[in-house]
Amino acid sequence: MPEQVALVPAEDVATWDETVDVVVVGYGIAGACAALEAQRAGADVLVVDRAGGPGGSSIVSSGIFYLGGGTALQRDLGHEDDPEEMYKFLLSSTNAPDASIVRRYCLGSPEHFDWLEAQGVPFERSYFGGKSVVLTSTTGLFSTGNEKAWPFREIARPAPRGHKVAGEGEHAGAVGMQAILATCQAEDLPAMSDTRVTALVAGGDGGIIGVRARRDGADVHLRAGRGVVLGTGGFNFDPGMLAEHVPSLAATSEPLGVPGNDGSGIVLGVSAGASTQSMGGIIATGSFYPPSGLIKGVLVNLRGERFVAEDAYHGRTAGFIMEQPEQRAFLVVDAATFAYPKITAHRHTLVDGWETVEEMERALGMPAGALVATLAAYNEHAASGEDPQFMKHPDWVVPLTNGPWAAFDVSFDTSSYLFMTLGGLRTDADARVLTTRGRPVPGLYAAGACASTIAQDGKGYASGLSLGPGSFFGRVAGRHVAHRQPA
Amino acid sequence: MPEQVALVPAEDVATWDETVDVVVVGYGIAGACAALEAQRAGADVLVVDRAGGPGGSSIVSSGIFYLGGGTALQRDLGHEDDPEEMYKFLLSSTNAPDASIVRRYCLGSPEHFDWLEAQGVPFERSYFGGKSVVLTSTTGLFSTGNEKAWPFREIARPAPRGHKVAGEGEHAGAVGMQAILATCQAEDLPAMSDTRVTALVAGGDGGIIGVRARRDGADVHLRAGRGVVLGTGGFNFDPGMLAEHVPSLAATSEPLGVPGNDGSGIVLGVSAGASTQSMGGIIATGSFYPPSGLIKGVLVNLRGERFVAEDAYHGRTAGFIMEQPEQRAFLVVDAATFAYPKITAHRHTLVDGWETVEEMERALGMPAGALVATLAAYNEHAASGEDPQFMKHPDWVVPLTNGPWAAFDVSFDTSSYLFMTLGGLRTDADARVLTTRGRPVPGLYAAGACASTIAQDGKGYASGLSLGPGSFFGRVAGRHVAHRQPA
Repeated sequence: MPEQVALVPAEDVATWDETVDVVVVGYGIAGACAALEAQRAGADVLVVDRAGGPGGSSIVSSGIFYLGGGTALQRDLGHEDDPEEMYKFLLSSTNAPDASIVRRYCLGSPEHFDWLEAQGVPFERSYFGGKSVVLTSTTGLFSTGNEKAWPFREIARPAPRGHKVAGEGEHAGAVGMQAILATCQAEDLPAMSDTRVTALVAGGDGGIIGVRARRDGADVHLRAGRGVVLGTGGFNFDPGMLAEHVPSLAATSEPLGVPGNDGSGIVLGVSAGASTQSMGGIIATGSFYPPSGLIKGVLVNLRGERFVAEDAYHGRTAGFIMEQPEQRAFLVVDAATFAYPKITAHRHTLVDGWETVEEMERALGMPAGALVATLAAYNEHAASGEDPQFMKHPDWVVPLTNGPWAAFDVSFDTSSYLFMTLGGLRTDADARVLTTRGRPVPGLYAAGACASTIAQDGKGYASGLSLGPGSFFGRVAGRHVAHRQPA
Repeated sequence: MPEQVALVPAEDVATWDETVDVVVVGYGIAGACAALEAQRAGADVLVVDRAGGPGGSSIVSSGIFYLGGGTALQRDLGHEDDPEEMYKFLLSSTNAPDASIVRRYCLGSPEHFDWLEAQGVPFERSYFGGKSVVLTSTTGLFSTGNEKAWPFREIARPAPRGHKVAGEGEHAGAVGMQAILATCQAEDLPAMSDTRVTALVAGGDGGIIGVRARRDGADVHLRAGRGVVLGTGGFNFDPGMLAEHVPSLAATSEPLGVPGNDGSGIVLGVSAGASTQSMGGIIATGSFYPPSGLIKGVLVNLRGERFVAEDAYHGRTAGFIMEQPEQRAFLVVDAATFAYPKITAHRHTLVDGWETVEEMERALGMPAGALVATLAAYNEHAASGEDPQFMKHPDWVVPLTNGPWAAFDVSFDTSSYLFMTLGGLRTDADARVLTTRGRPVPGLYAAGACASTIAQDGKGYASGLSLGPGSFFGRVAGRHVAHRQPA
């Protein structure tokens, strides 16, 4: 996407090729949910997507929705939760700038789960109690965040909130998205593919009244009487925006999503005076577990120092690894804790095995005595199951004492971390896009990865904080825009 | 300060005007502590400062050191604390990227207090238990952070850690700084005033071996055999750097410190390949209390919504106010909680008084019913002393029910907030300046407000996190550089 696009004044539009109430840009889950709700509220809706078909990046996702507060799935499986605990966890762990967005999401979360099921998204009544990153089975519920990691376990009662679509493999999101698209089709939702929005059209008051799009090699103009909803995804695939906003990415970092995630919605919003938020925030994932026993090892940097609790959510761990010297880190295990990481895609290679810690620290290029001191300090407290330095949960704290020793290279630039961008348009709890002064841009809404709502960075992310808020605030946007008075 | 300066290659220096082991740039508390420790470790030291005399911004500060872990002052006054609780608090509240820096500070904090007293800095054995921002009395110990605010009170046992120099008025820092300067003088510490460092000089390996400075209208070159310590302060007074890094400042924001705080040390460090950290972070202060009873009111934004617990540390509150629509906020009180804020310098004016909440929300330009709903929700839980939305401490939670109502305008751009910049050079726990790859720049150290160590932004700041770490890591730098092998 070009860095800047111009806002088109209404008087420059000679003819409107189509006139509807609501134009939805992007046919991923945010756009689909917005369109469904707007049409059900009585609005004439048109969804446009630049790709040859619908689905966006949602259709290649792992299909996890972060939901809670006592959803039907949580209740059916006997897991207690309530919106207040979920709110306290998200408020403190994500540092979301707008608490009203977090509150709206937590209070609406149980109903949103019911709604997803009503659209045909399948969730199996089964629970996985271990520590995992993605599930390739159809299991429905597991923990996907920092709930049990310190300090969050002291702030809010942990509950499993990863609600996973009952699909097999790594892209169960397809099963969920196909269900939603089938609902859209059953309700005759009008949509245009191969249509790329290139500019927003503004009325005299600066409010958004339509879009200009490129279709079949020509410009078309689509009038949106009530407003435009952006659901265009993040900017994972835009080298220019990544270089500007996320300079810490490594050459080996691999974007999740689809090539259409080039930040177009963000650039369009900015053309209308929108402000952006947390543009440097990404969630990077390159977990060293499963097997979860590896969490009993210690993560150290090139100085031989620990820097994060090893039982943190893998995105939090990655956030810290990116800040270490040379973005390098090693997982150190002794003979009793040794195992190979099972996710081979991340290429966390075994550096070597050594008889002594002294040999290991020398081979890893650490200062003499540094790793020896780190392990001595760790073991001193581990003997009583404690980790005063990073408060790793006692479940994962055992002394590491017996060689041979081994180290896996989990560095940011030698491993292969997958990432998603989290920055985007600033919105309010009604999914309205906000200006730099914090006022809504009339007629402009955003949801999904082009908007910044709850998660701001990898340290505070939890799996499912993309599909969850994306679908939820898509619905919020659809309902709000449908009831908006035309300018 | 110009945005960029060039690094001078050693071969461009024809003559060295002075040759010492250690050049310290800036004679505030960080520089003074570095110089004292380096000289005591046997190094030949020279301190240079651009101003006409020593003191820097430390000499106009309020004289608070954030210290704990069981200092003599805490112990003498019967306040229990230990380094682990202090560490847990700072680690979680500041989100400091490098835990080893936080750890070093907390473990060393009791000894550092003793050291400050040994240099002649006076601390009175007296305690203030109320909620205050600055103390104008000589009282020695009070709480100056978010220790009792949620969620931090659940993460670590609160303790008062604001150690205030026994001086009267708003600038007690002068009493502390003068004591340290008297010690410097007693130990014949060599210093040059009116000497502005304009460039660093690098040897063949990129390591720093000296500085170029402007003195009496001519360039002088000062050779530093072991290294250079930067202690030049923040960039509060540099309009260009503020515009680039802290665009959210208001025209009414007023910098704390001295005009020499123009970011020169940061620019010098960057010329040597240093990386910077949290350059957008500031602590802004514009407290609406004392009197502390005002904390029983509610803070709302232009949408009529609350956005932060009213009992948060004032810098945390300001951090949230800056993010609200139009950076505007109001403190709303009823007849029972009404009082005028006592710090008139912040210009939190009384907007008006009203008989009903409906009149008030209309007069404040809020959506109809918004503030009514906010107060109804607040009062529902306040009746039982609870605040489930922001977990304000029960001490400050009472229902607000009886008019007449009043609102004080605490907006960022109509009040007068005082600020300090928190971003600066990235360093390690030895106060060595780090490159973008996280490796030390040989021979270059930084401490004080030109370095980023513990506090990253106003939301996680506590009063005393400038003088405290500034003096502590100044000492660390001085000891480390004194023992460094010359290149």
